Amino acid sequence: MKKLTSLLAALCLTAAAFAQQALGPGTGLVSPEINPDHSVTFRLFAPKAVMVQLTGDFLPTRPIEYEMGGQKLTYDAPGIVDLKEGPGGIWSYTSAQLEGELYSYSFLVDGRKVMDPSNVYQNRDVATWTNIFTLSAEKGDKGWYYEVHDVPHGTLAHVWYDSPTLGKQRRLSVYTPAGYEDHPKAKYPVLYLLHGSGGDEDAWTDLGRTAQILDNLIAEGKATPMIVVMPNGVWFNQAAPGAAVNMFQPTFENSRSQSTIEVEESFPDIMDFVEKHYHVAKGYANTAVAGLSMGGRQSCMLSMHYPKRFGYVGLFSGVATTEGNEAALDAVFAAHPKLYWIGCGKADGIMVNSRRLKDWCDAKGYPAILYESEGGHIWRNWREYLTIFAQQLFK
Amino acid sequence: MKKLTSLLAALCLTAAAFAQQALGPGTGLVSPEINPDHSVTFRLFAPKAVMVQLTGDFLPTRPIEYEMGGQKLTYDAPGIVDLKEGPGGIWSYTSAQLEGELYSYSFLVDGRKVMDPSNVYQNRDVATWTNIFTLSAEKGDKGWYYEVHDVPHGTLAHVWYDSPTLGKQRRLSVYTPAGYEDHPKAKYPVLYLLHGSGGDEDAWTDLGRTAQILDNLIAEGKATPMIVVMPNGVWFNQAAPGAAVNMFQPTFENSRSQSTIEVEESFPDIMDFVEKHYHVAKGYANTAVAGLSMGGRQSCMLSMHYPKRFGYVGLFSGVATTEGNEAALDAVFAAHPKLYWIGCGKADGIMVNSRRLKDWCDAKGYPAILYESEGGHIWRNWREYLTIFAQQLFK
Repeated sequence: MKKLTSLLAALCLTAAAFAQQALGPGTGLVSPEINPDHSVTFRLFAPKAVMVQLTGDFLPTRPIEYEMGGQKLTYDAPGIVDLKEGPGGIWSYTSAQLEGELYSYSFLVDGRKVMDPSNVYQNRDVATWTNIFTLSAEKGDKGWYYEVHDVPHGTLAHVWYDSPTLGKQRRLSVYTPAGYEDHPKAKYPVLYLLHGSGGDEDAWTDLGRTAQILDNLIAEGKATPMIVVMPNGVWFNQAAPGAAVNMFQPTFENSRSQSTIEVEESFPDIMDFVEKHYHVAKGYANTAVAGLSMGGRQSCMLSMHYPKRFGYVGLFSGVATTEGNEAALDAVFAAHPKLYWIGCGKADGIMVNSRRLKDWCDAKGYPAILYESEGGHIWRNWREYLTIFAQQLFK
Repeated sequence: MKKLTSLLAALCLTAAAFAQQALGPGTGLVSPEINPDHSVTFRLFAPKAVMVQLTGDFLPTRPIEYEMGGQKLTYDAPGIVDLKEGPGGIWSYTSAQLEGELYSYSFLVDGRKVMDPSNVYQNRDVATWTNIFTLSAEKGDKGWYYEVHDVPHGTLAHVWYDSPTLGKQRRLSVYTPAGYEDHPKAKYPVLYLLHGSGGDEDAWTDLGRTAQILDNLIAEGKATPMIVVMPNGVWFNQAAPGAAVNMFQPTFENSRSQSTIEVEESFPDIMDFVEKHYHVAKGYANTAVAGLSMGGRQSCMLSMHYPKRFGYVGLFSGVATTEGNEAALDAVFAAHPKLYWIGCGKADGIMVNSRRLKDWCDAKGYPAILYESEGGHIWRNWREYLTIFAQQLFK
């Protein structure tokens, strides 16, 4: 009887294993494997495939030409490389040595996208899923800040608030730093952090690695403990896919906010909620707003609409135009912001407008900072901008 | 100039769109499409494919034989069906009429698993990703409870706690009901909810739909507002993939807890943390423990080890053996639990032990409930068990 009992206990696990694996068999492969020299090897078992390729944001980019408004433009798409078939139908590819970073990739088997079945780490960017991995070549490099380390950890909460202006409940993500719950009388400054077109309240937490970046910076004494509020910036949506009443499919066509009017009018609902439900240090010197792409433009507009609310402004690969906004920008700088920080990639189409805003500020004698990084309109830049920006807040 | 500015603003979005889509092109297809009669149509663009199939937990199961310990056993694996190719390389399949439920599926293109590129809703179950969708045939059916409705929503937080017993920081998920933050002097009862082998602290929140089930039950007045604490039940792990210092790959071999000793010894660390950091109604009548599979066995063991701590016990497709535990079980029932609830599928290998425990309780005159559902060792049952169990708590 005891033997049967053990057998049944084992069966409990085995049946579950079968159930899990039925929809996708496990693999005995290690992929990706980060090698000692920081090259990375990718492996896929595909004995029947004619061609196996890899596309990823660590590969040399491919220039892709396209036309818009009669202009010929070029976009740098992630590269594609071929894997080689080895014994047993296992295809592999080893990358060049990589620097510390969070990287995305997918396989292409005979031209069709296939997720790496050996790697459970996946992230959604708007409507696109990719496998991801982080690599830190040394302590303190970019990749190191995106990983989880044995430091005090903050809490990441998915919270609903009521927006009277928009007439609905909406979801936002809130990072509270380590120790927040243990110090109910302490007051914390707040960074409002906005995502890009078609994204949602999970964008900065997942691909943005906000919790990891803040945990690590705060643990090192490089950032002031702060609350980070990440709303859903597509104002006609409620929440991320799967968390909303209407289970929409995000696309760039249906998910971007066509105007910022809704942002300006409804943003106080968010601030009211946060200041009521969290123990917040209020006021200009304790409030920052920043965002990427569409969220950068929204941050720019919010700072102009409420020039005395945000003492720190971060515009990551997204700005509003200066023309027509001169008086509003004058008002922003009349309040003497502690930091007005623009970040943009040199290969980003937004750079033209970013430089124009910086030049306009320079001509006026306004202390705007323009940080020019390599690359284009990509998460790698936005994680870096957050890491740099967060260190300058509330000091 | 104004035209160029608009162009650049458009480019901002376009460049982003290219960037997103580069790793996986968008589709113009609707898949899955839930038809008015509650059948579901799946579509995939695959002009070069020879064969496109679908596997999903709504298809008739396939019996698969396997051997264990010299015994021939049968496991019901999810079915596989062929899609038909139509014009333009679009393959499709329409299911039978489905009842309200959360369903999982994947495509198989020429035998290789491919995620549905038209459906952003995906979930990870241990190491396996599948597409998912929910369907509610009518208000109040099972699927309805798993969807988000326009009701007051609780907060779902990912929190770190310190486990002195295990010598490390660990992550857990906490659901606090709507209104929790607004009533700091209210005290809430607590359900500790444990996952299965190889799972983690995201299992009950994602595939378990805990927040949706509790939000909906509480809004309807069917469940008492409660806190639900979902720890990571693999005691040598810290956290889910991507959230841990050690970015392990979950498998059934390396991720299941081999013994429950660690559970019994370290579980008070979790309760201490929760009772210190949340406003909790303490004590036997306000504390429940439940779990699925391995977590059911852990719940069973915890209730025996701490017979006066848990006034409500839920064993979902997982129990400990009665033999050798008779005295401990006597102590459990000597404390007069408010509810001792066993749920198991009729096709589940665990049913033998579940019935044995029920029979043993009956012979002793102990008021255990055994709920026998259809099906086996599957999430569909565990979501249903939570829905039933939660309605009987703290009343």
